[in-house]
Formats: sequence, C-alpha cells, structure tokens
Amino acid sequence: MTAFHEPGRDEHNGTAGSLLAGVDIGGSKIAVLVADRSLAVRGRHLARTDVGSPDRAVDQILAALDAALADAGGSRIELAAVGVGVPGRVDRASGTVSLAVNLGWERLPFGSLLRDRLDRPVEVENDVRAAAAGLHDRAVLGDLADLAYLSIGTGISAGVVLGGRLHRGPRGMAGEIGHVVLDPTGPLCPCGLRGCFEALASGPAIARQAEVALRSGRTSSLESHRPLTAVDVFDHAAGGDPLAFEIVEAVGGWIARAVHELVMAFDVRRVALGGGVASAGETFLAPIDRGLDRLRDASPLARAALPPDVVAVLGAGAEVGPWGALILARSALRDAGRPARVEEVADA
Amino acid sequence: MTAFHEPGRDEHNGTAGSLLAGVDIGGSKIAVLVADRSLAVRGRHLARTDVGSPDRAVDQILAALDAALADAGGSRIELAAVGVGVPGRVDRASGTVSLAVNLGWERLPFGSLLRDRLDRPVEVENDVRAAAAGLHDRAVLGDLADLAYLSIGTGISAGVVLGGRLHRGPRGMAGEIGHVVLDPTGPLCPCGLRGCFEALASGPAIARQAEVALRSGRTSSLESHRPLTAVDVFDHAAGGDPLAFEIVEAVGGWIARAVHELVMAFDVRRVALGGGVASAGETFLAPIDRGLDRLRDASPLARAALPPDVVAVLGAGAEVGPWGALILARSALRDAGRPARVEEVADA
Repeated sequence: MTAFHEPGRDEHNGTAGSLLAGVDIGGSKIAVLVADRSLAVRGRHLARTDVGSPDRAVDQILAALDAALADAGGSRIELAAVGVGVPGRVDRASGTVSLAVNLGWERLPFGSLLRDRLDRPVEVENDVRAAAAGLHDRAVLGDLADLAYLSIGTGISAGVVLGGRLHRGPRGMAGEIGHVVLDPTGPLCPCGLRGCFEALASGPAIARQAEVALRSGRTSSLESHRPLTAVDVFDHAAGGDPLAFEIVEAVGGWIARAVHELVMAFDVRRVALGGGVASAGETFLAPIDRGLDRLRDASPLARAALPPDVVAVLGAGAEVGPWGALILARSALRDAGRPARVEEVADA
Repeated sequence: MTAFHEPGRDEHNGTAGSLLAGVDIGGSKIAVLVADRSLAVRGRHLARTDVGSPDRAVDQILAALDAALADAGGSRIELAAVGVGVPGRVDRASGTVSLAVNLGWERLPFGSLLRDRLDRPVEVENDVRAAAAGLHDRAVLGDLADLAYLSIGTGISAGVVLGGRLHRGPRGMAGEIGHVVLDPTGPLCPCGLRGCFEALASGPAIARQAEVALRSGRTSSLESHRPLTAVDVFDHAAGGDPLAFEIVEAVGGWIARAVHELVMAFDVRRVALGGGVASAGETFLAPIDRGLDRLRDASPLARAALPPDVVAVLGAGAEVGPWGALILARSALRDAGRPARVEEVADA
C-alpha cells in the first residue's frame, strides 16, 4: 500500500493544493511544467542534468520541481499532484520502474519514493505512452480517438491511443516497435536482431551510418565533426552534403515504412513524430514525406491508408513529454479522489 | 432503418426462436454452424460452392442455412438470430459490405438483404475479426484479454482483441497486416508494394515461388503437379522435396517475423494461426517454430516477448470462422433486445 492510501492522509488528496506538476525525465535533462487545475501553464523549469544514481535521482527531481513551482510563484504547499514520465518500463499501478536503461534504473520503486517525500498523489508512466495520452487529451492532432506518438531519439518506441484510451497491453509492451525488423539484411542491432527500426533510424544509428561511410572512404563535410552525432548529420544534409543527405533520405524512408506499419496494424488516423531526432524539423520531415509519397505512388491501398496529413512533427517547443506528465498528474489527482482505486488495481 | 427496427416487428427479436446460426462465407464454400442459445452445437452444413453473383448469394446462403437448420432438426421458425462472417470490409453498424474482392461484392447492403428475407436480427462482420472475437469469447487460447488471430490463406489479415474487446479501428482497417512490408527487396505484391507479407506467405505467393523456381530450372518432385497450389508445396515439403522444403522454410520465417511484429506492436500474449495455408498442420508449424527460435536465440528481448506457447495453429476442424459467426449471432440477439441500438449507431 502506498503513502496516499494510508488512513489519515486521504484528506489531502484531491483537495489540498491548486497546482499540478508534470515531470519529464530524460537521459540528460529534467523538464518540469506546472499548471493550475484547468491546465493553464503557470511555470516551467528545464534542468540540464542526468539523474545520476537512483539514490540521488529523487533529490534532483525534487530540486527541478521546486524550481518550476517557484517559477509559478508557488511552492510544494500549493502542489496537488505530480505526474512523471520515465524513459523505461513502468508498472503504472505501483509506480515501480522495472527497467530504464538510459537512466541506469532497475526495479526502482520510484512512485513510492516520490510519494513518501511529497505526501501527494504521484502517477508514473512510460514517457512515450504518457506523451501519447497527453496528445489525445489535449486534442493536439485534432479530435481523434485513435492516434500514435512515435518517439525517435536515442531509442525508438510508440505510444498508442485506441478508441480514446491509451493502449498499454497486458505486459506494458504495446508500441515497442523500436525492435521490429524493417530490413532483414540491415545492420546488426544491439538487441541481437538485424535491421530493427532502432538500428536504422535512432540517433545513434544515424551517427553510426555516417561513421561507417566515412571509414569506408566516402568524402563528406562531416569529416571535421567526429565524433559525430545525428544532429551533425541533419545539419550537414541541410547544408547540401551528399553523404549526409543520402543517410537522412534513407532514414526518412524507414520512418515512412514504420508509419505505414503503425497505420495498417492499429488503424490510427494520424501519427505524431517527436523525440530528439525529430527536432531537426524540416530536414527530418521532408525525407519522410518523400518516403510516404513513394508508398502512396506504388499502392492505392497505401494511398488510402496514408492521408496527406497522416504525420505531424512535434518539435521540442511542443513540450510533448512534460505535457504528457501533466495529464498524468491530473489523472493521479482524480484517482486519489476515488476510494475504489486499490480494489480496481487488484482486479486488473 | 432496417427491418428489425420497424414497429410491430420488434416482438420477434430476442424472444422468438431457440437457435443461433453462424455463417462463414469463403471464396469456395459456405460453412454454417447451428447452436442453441447456450452455444451447444445442434447442427452444421458445409456447402462447397462459391457465392456467385451478389444477386444469387443470398439464395445460396439461405439454402446452406436451411440445410444446417435441418441437420439440427429444426427450421427457420426456430431461428433466433444469424451472424455472418464475410472476407472483406464490412460496416458492422449497417451490415453493408463495402468491398469483398474474392466474392466480387462491392457496396452490397448484405445485412439488410438478409434481414428482409429472414425477419430476424442479423450481424455481419469481417470474417477474420469475427473469428478473433469468437476465439476470445470462447477462451480457446486460454483466459486472455489480449490475442490476435492471423489468417493466412488467399489473403492475409489479422483480427485483434485488446483488453477483452475486438479492436476494429475508426476505418475498420485494424489488423490489415497483409500489406505490411516485411522484405523491402522481396517480390512485387499485386497491391503495388514490394515484399508485403501477402506477397511472401499467402497461398498464391507460395505457389508462385515454386513456379518461379521451377521455371528457373530447379528440379523438384513438384514438376509433375503444375499448375501448383500451396497445398502441393506443403505436401512435397513433407515428402522430402528439397525445393518445396526450402520454400516452406522461408514462409515459416516470414510468418514468425509477422508474429513478432504483432506481439511487439499490440502486446498480445498469443497469436492463433488459421486460414487455408495453416491447414497444412505440422509442415506449416515446424518452420514457424524454427523462425521464432531464430528470433529468440538472437535477442533476449524477442525471447521475453515470444513465450514457447505464443503461437497456436487452429486447423479446419476448429471451425474458427463459423464459431466467430455464431458469436456474432448471439451479439445480434443481444443488440436486438436493446431499444437504444439505433441511437447508439447514430452517435457513433
């Protein structure tokens, strides 16, 4: 049983505090958004830090939260509930993070730790799933009951909303398409398979493709930028470098293929693209559009499945992660007001 | 407004008749299962016929239905409701078949036609989706809320049950993975794309691969069997023919890949395999098992996602299609007892 179900504490929940906080934890930053109960933004804070050891993580997160609350002209006293998006596998009922590779967390009872420190309702969810639920809730892609959010960064995964509800799956694995094989003759993925989506289009995969090409003797303006990042490759593609353009073009083709798969499998109406790689903007989007057009031109079925507005790129300014976490906070507040929560979880 | 909503007729629905009928329509046969309201089977009939022109289809279906009712010792008087599975795109609310390529149907108001003739509640659904819902309803794969039914025959598609509910998608396209690209360098698919699942593992694709190999000069015991069918290829693979074995092995690998995609995308716990190609039994299953093992051996992530019992092959004896249609009949009967149905459809 978690802190907010203990007798004598329930009177706090759903009543005290006027502010909601959404915390998005990444490998190199913590982004916090603070809003009132009607979701009007009141403050924000971006801490450029990694969460370090699990022991120090809660302290670092609370420091970022306090800074965002201060930006909103408030403090923890005004806090009603907190939502946290974590890049890893999360048991939403307990808030335990079973595995977050990029954070170095394993079986961390993160939700409990945070509830104990804050004495407030806390909801923890995988960051990409939270983002998808947030996009749906705020109708960012229009009034759609079926959509996907495809996050392309260090890793790749999708959050899927079906019939107006976030689809997690019985093992919380739904949307883990980063390790779906798109090219059986493609490069070896760290997961062990060949040609996974992540091995073709993630940030590290893009940088690796450029490195391999340079090592094989290709000339490119990228030569002076080693060690390379995906950002370098997109920058040089925009600058007209043929090798960088070639790589970015291929990446767009694979992402178009993945969008096609998401649409055919789930029948989602639109797919939002986000994550670090998506921040390259037009240089990122144009090759995807060309990839989608190749599919549409080849197949009437693909044309019907992939309407002109099927993809939407959401840059860093869209704050997709923190917004998803903020929607989680509202959900935590609602759940805390319902005495049946513990039984529901037991029934699930 | 359809017949069973007309004033003065509603008293029939949900009260008259003790028998449910499930009708599964295929390209070359009509299979009917008749059961009482507790789903105990009372009769069946298999008509080896194609449904011919849309005009004659209803007559042929009614003849098969009458034969199954007679086998159950009854007649249309005892009929309470009918469910029909159709291999095509179906608007479930109206029962209109927008497109069923193998039947030659296009924009056929099939549900209305059948209701007018029978004066009974009729529910029409895509055959593969109905089968998936039926497998879930009868707990054929165990007590699972999340499962997929992958039908591999002339075409390929999947029906998906998520969280205990059939997932159709807003355009009724969910699970249409026959035209997801598994091999970008694979054979050209009639849909226009290259290396679609259907172009690699459907019945016609299997026969075509054998034809192409023979024409290229490969020797094989298949030579004396032209024109070839997929059944021939599986038979000769079982008989030890190296070419047939090679083709069947590759097909198993592609099906394993598709199972992996279904599991990773939807987080379904098990995938049932059916359809004409699946009727080859062990010769069909063994190469899939080897394909799954290759994925498991390469990747711990794939091993975790694909438990030993992840696939189940359901042969023709499982009557997956007629059972799915029978569950539809029960659903039609329940819906007919609810006065709110017309409004619900209008709201949808």
